Amino acid sequence: MTIKIATRGAAEKILDKYDTYLFDCDGVIWIGNELLPSVKETLELLQSKKKNLIFVSNNSTKARDQYIEKLAGLGIHGVELEQIINSCYSTAIYINEVLQLDKAKKIWVLGQEGITKEVEKFGYETVTFKDLEAKFQEEELTVDNIQSLIDPQVGCVIVGLDFQVTYLKIAITQQYLFDRKIPFIATNIDSTFPFGKTKLPGAGSIVEVASFCSGREPDAICGKPQSGMMDSILSHHSLNKETTIMVGDRLNTDMKFGSVNGIDTLLVLTGIEVEESVANGHSDVTYYADKLGDLYDLTK
Amino acid sequence: MTIKIATRGAAEKILDKYDTYLFDCDGVIWIGNELLPSVKETLELLQSKKKNLIFVSNNSTKARDQYIEKLAGLGIHGVELEQIINSCYSTAIYINEVLQLDKAKKIWVLGQEGITKEVEKFGYETVTFKDLEAKFQEEELTVDNIQSLIDPQVGCVIVGLDFQVTYLKIAITQQYLFDRKIPFIATNIDSTFPFGKTKLPGAGSIVEVASFCSGREPDAICGKPQSGMMDSILSHHSLNKETTIMVGDRLNTDMKFGSVNGIDTLLVLTGIEVEESVANGHSDVTYYADKLGDLYDLTK
Repeated sequence: MTIKIATRGAAEKILDKYDTYLFDCDGVIWIGNELLPSVKETLELLQSKKKNLIFVSNNSTKARDQYIEKLAGLGIHGVELEQIINSCYSTAIYINEVLQLDKAKKIWVLGQEGITKEVEKFGYETVTFKDLEAKFQEEELTVDNIQSLIDPQVGCVIVGLDFQVTYLKIAITQQYLFDRKIPFIATNIDSTFPFGKTKLPGAGSIVEVASFCSGREPDAICGKPQSGMMDSILSHHSLNKETTIMVGDRLNTDMKFGSVNGIDTLLVLTGIEVEESVANGHSDVTYYADKLGDLYDLTK
Repeated sequence: MTIKIATRGAAEKILDKYDTYLFDCDGVIWIGNELLPSVKETLELLQSKKKNLIFVSNNSTKARDQYIEKLAGLGIHGVELEQIINSCYSTAIYINEVLQLDKAKKIWVLGQEGITKEVEKFGYETVTFKDLEAKFQEEELTVDNIQSLIDPQVGCVIVGLDFQVTYLKIAITQQYLFDRKIPFIATNIDSTFPFGKTKLPGAGSIVEVASFCSGREPDAICGKPQSGMMDSILSHHSLNKETTIMVGDRLNTDMKFGSVNGIDTLLVLTGIEVEESVANGHSDVTYYADKLGDLYDLTK
């Protein structure tokens, strides 16, 4: 049964039962550059109760330290680097620990610098379109010259959200992916990206175009709801599943991420989903609330 | 049974049996800017036998008169405008005759100018990113300003191959497609585009990203193998299916286009496919040959 958190009693029950809160960020903590109502107060309440807070995001456009800066900029202080797990970090862990990619191989990244930063921390050399812009004249950066733009030392491809995606960048990614020995790693597969009052194309849209034009599916997806990300959270933080809750705004990523990994879930309606989708019950959703801030508003 | 055209007798049988030849262009007539071997001689042979030649292409990056120019530039003269059917023209016919879109509605085009030219010939006003560049300052052309970039008079979206595709153009297309009353028309869905010795992302890749980020399938696809294109060819040219043959280089578009519409097919191996795919027979392929030019080379 899916329970709505709409009363003081229901909110207090949540606060009593769970020690660890895994938070999706976009659509839960903030939307765009705005903190959602009563979120600061809710997080302070949880901190005062010595709860374990972990911020889990599929957003591959920012490195983890940028999350801490963003949270601080929104008035939320005292969050440590190890409390942040995003799909960039998860991707870097995957390549280093699961794929164990040879450090002599370079990684082509179609995505924002959050991805390159995280994989470079593990000692990998990345190649991005910015590197090509530094190496080639502008008139050489065309599909007519595509073979010269391919670096034979590239041995892995990462695709995530890229606000500067162009045809040429997609075409270069495609050329690498035509070599089936090169692993194809996706940060996450969200189709959209919440942005103010609208949605923009998400990382999954960029992954989809790379996938479709190369005729390949990603070899690994390092975001929610895929279990790779949960495995790294559980091992890094030695968590007890019984007292851990996943808080998110999306059914197909956040809620599934919790439910397929045996963790209770709380859906908040400040992002993608509407009440109609869960009011009659949803197998992936343990609880739902109008907003995360209700944990504070209902108990203050 | 699939027959290889490898002898004088087999080639002469083709020339005797078929009066109308529907040719795919990329990978059959030319690749990039190079005419394929003996194609000029083959087309002259067919012209001398008073055969009906129709050039059918999914390439939405060129208007029909650009095909005539391209053919002439490659030494192939005497082709008339009505002998050219591409997915731009087919898309324009669809919007005007099947969809019967109100001429007061504008059409947002994510694609090359071949598309805008064809729909404008039917009296429609198009909106493209170039129009936005003319109307807005460069610093206004960002996703932060996306709502201002949306034209409320747009009542139809066309997506095709766009070598200048960017994140912002995809995001604008997505915003229009979020309005489910706006028809979503795709020129064609080829995943790749033959380009010299390699392949680049095709129109289908651009359609796929628009489709994925908006959560919609195209309402109509105006290229091979979809039957809309065949319907317009058959009605425009009053053809007899029995004596018509489709010549192409792709199984999933050209060959299917013929077979699902009850027309014999000839696969040439100068483009996408390899002999191994058809040597043991293929239900969509009536004949195959190493190249179109073999019709001349084998009978000269």
